Amino acid sequence: MTAAAPATACPAWPDRPADAAIRAVLEALRPLLGARLSTGQAVRDQHGHDESSHPSQPPDAVAFAETTEEVAAIVRACAAHRVPVIAFGTGTALEGQVTAVHGGVCIDLSPMNAILEVRPEDMDVTVQAGVTRKQLNAHLRDTGLFFPIDPGADASLGGMAATRASGTNAVRYGTMREAVLALTVVTASGEIVRTARRARKSSAGYDLTRLFVGSEGTLGVITEVTLRLHGIPERILAAVCPFPNLRAAVDTVIETIQSGVPIARIELLDPDQVRAVNAYSKTDHAVAPTLFLEFHGSETHTREQVEMVEALAAEHGAEGFRWAASLEDRNRLWQARHDAHYAGLAMRPGAKGVSSDVCVPISRLADCIEETQRDLAASPATTTLVGHVGDGNFHVQFVFDPDNAEEIAEAKRLNQRIVERALAMDGTCTGEHGVGLGKKAYLAVEHGAEGLALMRAVKQALDPLGIMNPGKMVG
Amino acid sequence: MTAAAPATACPAWPDRPADAAIRAVLEALRPLLGARLSTGQAVRDQHGHDESSHPSQPPDAVAFAETTEEVAAIVRACAAHRVPVIAFGTGTALEGQVTAVHGGVCIDLSPMNAILEVRPEDMDVTVQAGVTRKQLNAHLRDTGLFFPIDPGADASLGGMAATRASGTNAVRYGTMREAVLALTVVTASGEIVRTARRARKSSAGYDLTRLFVGSEGTLGVITEVTLRLHGIPERILAAVCPFPNLRAAVDTVIETIQSGVPIARIELLDPDQVRAVNAYSKTDHAVAPTLFLEFHGSETHTREQVEMVEALAAEHGAEGFRWAASLEDRNRLWQARHDAHYAGLAMRPGAKGVSSDVCVPISRLADCIEETQRDLAASPATTTLVGHVGDGNFHVQFVFDPDNAEEIAEAKRLNQRIVERALAMDGTCTGEHGVGLGKKAYLAVEHGAEGLALMRAVKQALDPLGIMNPGKMVG
Repeated sequence: MTAAAPATACPAWPDRPADAAIRAVLEALRPLLGARLSTGQAVRDQHGHDESSHPSQPPDAVAFAETTEEVAAIVRACAAHRVPVIAFGTGTALEGQVTAVHGGVCIDLSPMNAILEVRPEDMDVTVQAGVTRKQLNAHLRDTGLFFPIDPGADASLGGMAATRASGTNAVRYGTMREAVLALTVVTASGEIVRTARRARKSSAGYDLTRLFVGSEGTLGVITEVTLRLHGIPERILAAVCPFPNLRAAVDTVIETIQSGVPIARIELLDPDQVRAVNAYSKTDHAVAPTLFLEFHGSETHTREQVEMVEALAAEHGAEGFRWAASLEDRNRLWQARHDAHYAGLAMRPGAKGVSSDVCVPISRLADCIEETQRDLAASPATTTLVGHVGDGNFHVQFVFDPDNAEEIAEAKRLNQRIVERALAMDGTCTGEHGVGLGKKAYLAVEHGAEGLALMRAVKQALDPLGIMNPGKMVG
Repeated sequence: MTAAAPATACPAWPDRPADAAIRAVLEALRPLLGARLSTGQAVRDQHGHDESSHPSQPPDAVAFAETTEEVAAIVRACAAHRVPVIAFGTGTALEGQVTAVHGGVCIDLSPMNAILEVRPEDMDVTVQAGVTRKQLNAHLRDTGLFFPIDPGADASLGGMAATRASGTNAVRYGTMREAVLALTVVTASGEIVRTARRARKSSAGYDLTRLFVGSEGTLGVITEVTLRLHGIPERILAAVCPFPNLRAAVDTVIETIQSGVPIARIELLDPDQVRAVNAYSKTDHAVAPTLFLEFHGSETHTREQVEMVEALAAEHGAEGFRWAASLEDRNRLWQARHDAHYAGLAMRPGAKGVSSDVCVPISRLADCIEETQRDLAASPATTTLVGHVGDGNFHVQFVFDPDNAEEIAEAKRLNQRIVERALAMDGTCTGEHGVGLGKKAYLAVEHGAEGLALMRAVKQALDPLGIMNPGKMVG
């Protein structure tokens, strides 16, 4: 059996399960899953990495699950033999969350792609974890409702819940923290738990939903997600606005937020990012610090919001908005924004990318970005900067030659400075990408030894065998 | 030492701390707290109950804490001798959350009433846990900001966080789940933990903030709260609107929510509640199923919302809104609503009240209320009905003679039917009052044995000695 041999990619991990344990799990699961349990090298390799530059570490086997009960059976088999369990959605994480650093069984949830129930009257929906955000929105098209949260990738909703993902709409509609009403979760002992009822609020006990949102598969496997939906606004207007300098753009954002305008999207791109987007997405935006904006509301309310933000932008020297009102134009605009990550990578063929993800209180955002820009200007590193600035969240993408140790070291040095700067400003090391492997080292700084100890106590209580996505986050 | 004698009110609890343990704690704390450590019967009696009808159970001593460090010292002393710790804010809970069912030391946080820092640019504030919501809003008056969450009572913000409280504004501004950005918490071992940074979003580890919000002092003591604030709207309009029947009122609410109008408040009172309010608050509202509404926004946006909701109300037979536009008129209107609980009690001098608190998906709200009304109409019980109906949350207040066993039994029977009905509709047994003693029995039904087991595992992990508000919620 191929999977019985330890994966050669990670011989250094001392606590891989014994070959016999893996074999026993495979034997237990084969009757249940048949061909949906794979130990082929190609399938394992596919499941050993995400979109980050963290080295691939394939699992020993991949189980393609179709139901919550199957996930429960897989987890129970793994628990019986102390074999790690890694949940996998679309593999679009950015901090190494799905790498099998301790080997084990990867549960691929992509076959769980059913939209179980749309309830237009309650403006909510229940989906299996493998449904992607674009699939959901395509399905909702005729209901007058939409699901707003949009990380760049077409990620699975289970994965988005697990990472506490957000995206460009979070400034108005919140993140997965706010969007998830309830989850179905398979615990580390293979029990099936529904974390909450569908009531919009509840004071009935500990907030299990929020405990699993953002837990990155380290406490259990999310198999179903109940999500809040929103009405498609009567009017949607998108615009692009270049600014004379970065400070002017960021100050416009800060004042927009402080003025209480319920702006739906307000995204910053630095000139390098605009150049990369123009090249990759065949757009012709002026190469300048630029805001991409979107306004949602009734006809009159949207106009009112636009007037207010245009006035703020003008005060900061902007020459005016370039509008995208039709669905087609708006889609082109936002596709270019969503492709920013890939556009950055495309600047240097063969290069790898790593992205910072800090988020700071809005009053510190301009300082944080300006100080960061001074670092970047003084460095030979190839970078772009893009951000969900309405939330105080921005990304510097480092594009580097993966064979050049100097470039890697320089990216790490700059990244570390960005994180330390954000933490000093009462910010977080990760606004939306999660911890995975890449941010583990910062958790103790961000939460203190006592905060991290609490997290570890929760992990120990809910996963006493340490089999749920081991080696990640607090592991 | 008075406190050394077991409180006579609760001889049945087998696991009270030994007298020697209480004595040791008091001896350890006396040098720190001096006169702020009280064992006087009057003070203990004051701290043995909340505003519910759960029988008073006084603690062995009351410690008035002035700093987080003092709270930590008190908890460490209690942990050393396995003595229960009960946090106390204003004593306005409704499910017996502060009763000392296992004896122990009550920490009164009311001396911790400092507003530590208002940050208008970030629209947030950090307060000590004893600050009340009205105190905060009075302090904010000149900043253009306000804190929206308003349970009827002028509760402490620490207590509101601990109970995951909400109130009339939750339909637009969310509950304490959304309002709390970060907490300072003293853990069961006496460590001080800050649960999060001030960034508006983060994916950095488990959501400790949401874990403590709603934990009712069973995982630790909340000593500081960082809260989101909101800009005071340019225009605020409040209105009262009577309806020909309850269904018409509730259907207007449901359609308002489904139409996406960002209504700030939409509250239902049944005719009995209107009658009680008129008598208690000297108002002259028509005795009918009635909505109290409030609209927030710019001049034009508010007008737009009003037009839409007026049209919906008219379709359901309402004759029109009676407006309260001035601050004084609005305050009078909402004070009457906030006094609904006391107004209900005042219907029968000497009576006690107990309030149901279910919350259901909005599509089920009309059915849930109508079926409940049929129960009430067929019963001799004295009741009023009032609700945060925009959230799907409503309260039936039972006003009963505490010496009449039949009346008590009837209230319990009806209350149980309401909870079971709500749970069958995928709702929750408590939208905002919390579990305390009163809802313990329903947790297993609402969350299943597996869900409750997860909660108990968390409790065991974070409070292995079982000293934090024992006997409540999952205890």
